Amino acid sequence: MNNSDKTSPSKPLRASAVPHWDIETDIAIVGFGGAGACAAIEAADAGATVQLFELASASGGSTALSSAEIYMGGNGGTPVQQACGYSDDTENMLNYLRACFGNQADEDKLRYYCENSIAHYQWLTGMGVPFKMSELKERAIMALTDDCLLYTGNEKAYPFPEHAKPIPRGHNLEIEGDNGGPLLMKLLTEAVEARENVTVHYESRALTLVQDDNDVVVGIVVRINQKEHYVKASKGVILCAGGFCMNEEMVRKYAPQFDCGLTPIGNPGDTGSGILMGMGAGGATINMHECFVSLPYYPPSSLTYGILVNDKGQRFINEDCYHGRVGYNALLQQRNSKRIYMITDVEGYGDYERMSYLGAQVAGTGDTIAELEGELELPSDSLQQTLESYNRNAAEGNDPLYHKSDAWLRPIEPPFVALDCTLGRGPFYPFFTLGGLDSLPTGEVLNADREVIPGLYAAGRTTAGIPRTAAGYASGMSVGDATFFGRMAGKAAAAR
Amino acid sequence: MNNSDKTSPSKPLRASAVPHWDIETDIAIVGFGGAGACAAIEAADAGATVQLFELASASGGSTALSSAEIYMGGNGGTPVQQACGYSDDTENMLNYLRACFGNQADEDKLRYYCENSIAHYQWLTGMGVPFKMSELKERAIMALTDDCLLYTGNEKAYPFPEHAKPIPRGHNLEIEGDNGGPLLMKLLTEAVEARENVTVHYESRALTLVQDDNDVVVGIVVRINQKEHYVKASKGVILCAGGFCMNEEMVRKYAPQFDCGLTPIGNPGDTGSGILMGMGAGGATINMHECFVSLPYYPPSSLTYGILVNDKGQRFINEDCYHGRVGYNALLQQRNSKRIYMITDVEGYGDYERMSYLGAQVAGTGDTIAELEGELELPSDSLQQTLESYNRNAAEGNDPLYHKSDAWLRPIEPPFVALDCTLGRGPFYPFFTLGGLDSLPTGEVLNADREVIPGLYAAGRTTAGIPRTAAGYASGMSVGDATFFGRMAGKAAAAR
Repeated sequence: MNNSDKTSPSKPLRASAVPHWDIETDIAIVGFGGAGACAAIEAADAGATVQLFELASASGGSTALSSAEIYMGGNGGTPVQQACGYSDDTENMLNYLRACFGNQADEDKLRYYCENSIAHYQWLTGMGVPFKMSELKERAIMALTDDCLLYTGNEKAYPFPEHAKPIPRGHNLEIEGDNGGPLLMKLLTEAVEARENVTVHYESRALTLVQDDNDVVVGIVVRINQKEHYVKASKGVILCAGGFCMNEEMVRKYAPQFDCGLTPIGNPGDTGSGILMGMGAGGATINMHECFVSLPYYPPSSLTYGILVNDKGQRFINEDCYHGRVGYNALLQQRNSKRIYMITDVEGYGDYERMSYLGAQVAGTGDTIAELEGELELPSDSLQQTLESYNRNAAEGNDPLYHKSDAWLRPIEPPFVALDCTLGRGPFYPFFTLGGLDSLPTGEVLNADREVIPGLYAAGRTTAGIPRTAAGYASGMSVGDATFFGRMAGKAAAAR
Repeated sequence: MNNSDKTSPSKPLRASAVPHWDIETDIAIVGFGGAGACAAIEAADAGATVQLFELASASGGSTALSSAEIYMGGNGGTPVQQACGYSDDTENMLNYLRACFGNQADEDKLRYYCENSIAHYQWLTGMGVPFKMSELKERAIMALTDDCLLYTGNEKAYPFPEHAKPIPRGHNLEIEGDNGGPLLMKLLTEAVEARENVTVHYESRALTLVQDDNDVVVGIVVRINQKEHYVKASKGVILCAGGFCMNEEMVRKYAPQFDCGLTPIGNPGDTGSGILMGMGAGGATINMHECFVSLPYYPPSSLTYGILVNDKGQRFINEDCYHGRVGYNALLQQRNSKRIYMITDVEGYGDYERMSYLGAQVAGTGDTIAELEGELELPSDSLQQTLESYNRNAAEGNDPLYHKSDAWLRPIEPPFVALDCTLGRGPFYPFFTLGGLDSLPTGEVLNADREVIPGLYAAGRTTAGIPRTAAGYASGMSVGDATFFGRMAGKAAAAR
């Protein structure tokens, strides 16, 4: 193929233009991260032959780079939830997720996910994924112990308890340190490799889909060893190629509010190529403007006793929220604010220098609030009013403005410390994308009329899945979504 | 065509499936609003034959329903700006628009628009559009006099003067009352009808585009008198079919944050059909999640002396901003607030009952702030702190928190009045969509790779144009964009 340099993922090849089929299979899968691995396992277990194409030299994707907490619950609770004394129910989990994403949610996906979450737990343990029957009770971004269950979202933070009973649903793998992602992908990779009807190709770049004259997806073109391979996939193609946070041009075009100096987190293959391939085949994209973003100001959790203020010295959020919700509000809701500060005291500052991921610098200190206010160049009296009022109420266990839980309320005492949490002035603001192909819970990709494109499936961050905004995100939702809907796509394609 | 009921705008018809051509023309235009009219005039003046299809029984579109202020300036200033003593320059106008839309802006479109804005003024006056050499100095949502020039955006409001010298750029037509839209469309309609090479079809529904095997757009299928007409357009099709605010399903899918009980403003044909047709032909959509939204709390302008507060009793914006920016912040930035109040005094309340479009009810009154605070059930001391601090600074002509211009600063005096500006509790929150097809300044529609789709053009709210968010919107930007880029599309198609 001489014109290969002109190939764009968003330009499908017509089947009539395929010179010959190099590979014939039931199902072709693009991407060997969490979604692709689970799709391959389920498709193979349903008897289909699978060819799995991965751009990198090894499996992993962004799942391997993550902590791989998995968000699960409902139906009375997972065995871990039950062992730790929690009883979860499906409607409660569903109500929580609805509160997280509001009108942005896909009700069908939420319901399907909640109803089948326990079954997903069982499937994962069947793959050898270890979960300890224990709970980590700290407020943590991730578990560094081998404990399993932890609150990974806003379940306990206002206003979510008004919508659903707080239950921890983050399931950390039984391994010390932040090593859940590598372990999960090691286990899933072994499961894939153990299946004889799956063939894995590494260092293989999917170039474009192949569609017949009725727009049915019948295959894919893959470049392996600098040569195009035409792959016929009689049951379909499953795109599990990640999101687009590594594609600056796409971020600027589709999620411009996040094109502002954030740090993309994900694997280098998160270039949106799967999304573009789907678009080229007629797939509709939704939620493209939304990203996960975070201000990871804990650990140390003691900073949760502090307050976040804008350049008016006003608070803007209950500081016991999940770091993603805080990041979203600091970045978008407060986008007109030139500064964001964390105001704390010596006790709250605690182990900050040793433990923090944040990278925020000390912007000022003061023996009085007035002194700190002056040092931060905040309007006269602004921080003084905010902090005096906060302290007066905190002493009584109240936060009448933002309803921070009384577990995190205590007066902030002199001497005071301010951390500069302003984007661009030091702190780490990671992000990745939450928009992608519109799809059914079965992974079937939809066109603008929400009709299925025959033969095309997708899962993971190539789709718009469970998590739709950082304001409602919880750790474990992406790996949960990718592994769960990856499985569903594998099953559905195999049954086609 | 028996399967016409299955027609979807997002499914183009293959040229090979066209049974015969009922109409042959150089250019087919969908929609006879401001964009379509201007496209038809320019195309005809360049010598092309034009067939113009309008769903309604008359021309007008949303332009006729608007005030039809037109946002123009740059290049030393329009004759009206100059007559009123303003000198505008292109870079200043461009800097203002960049500040309005940030990363969401299309730099090419902004620059082209600013560089050619004076020429657009001349073209409009050549069509007989009357502009009086006078300025309306009130803070107004629209001019009810026949005066021309007024500030229609955030030009004078913080932080915009930090980015560009404030210049009024809204040009109101010379007609009493809110009658600019009907007058503009009457004049443009007469200009269209005067051109012998334009044929207008009313009550004609564009069903779908026709594409050849190379994906070139070669025509369109239109239903007239319950019969499909196949229209061959050898130079191209121009989609000027408005936005999608009247399509609840599309709003929920693409702009879910605006699917919350706002009032769509536009014509009933704003169903997104033009956008869907473009998508079906391979066009990429951008900015689909953004809408214009407004909290039209003036007139009376005296309410600008008041303060807007959230359910924490905190201010959140300089109240001298344009009503769209205020609406955006009240709705999105303050989405976690259960209440939004306008706090004013008797003098500020003034003529509210007689003049207002807002429809907000009085939520409380008080001889003291504490009394009002209690009546509004705001946290104890919250409104008191806010108002005491505001008044103390306002007396000195300062607003250290939000930088409201000193022209609108004075202490708010007892007795106090609060208007309930909460969405769903009375006030009018109008909206319309700001997302659509990605296109070049020439109106050429782009695919996901930003390559031109040959034969396909679009203008007006079918595209993502100059205005990209209500936070930076100014009245006159949509009619300015629609008429200007409508012209460019007409010219470009005629030259193809």
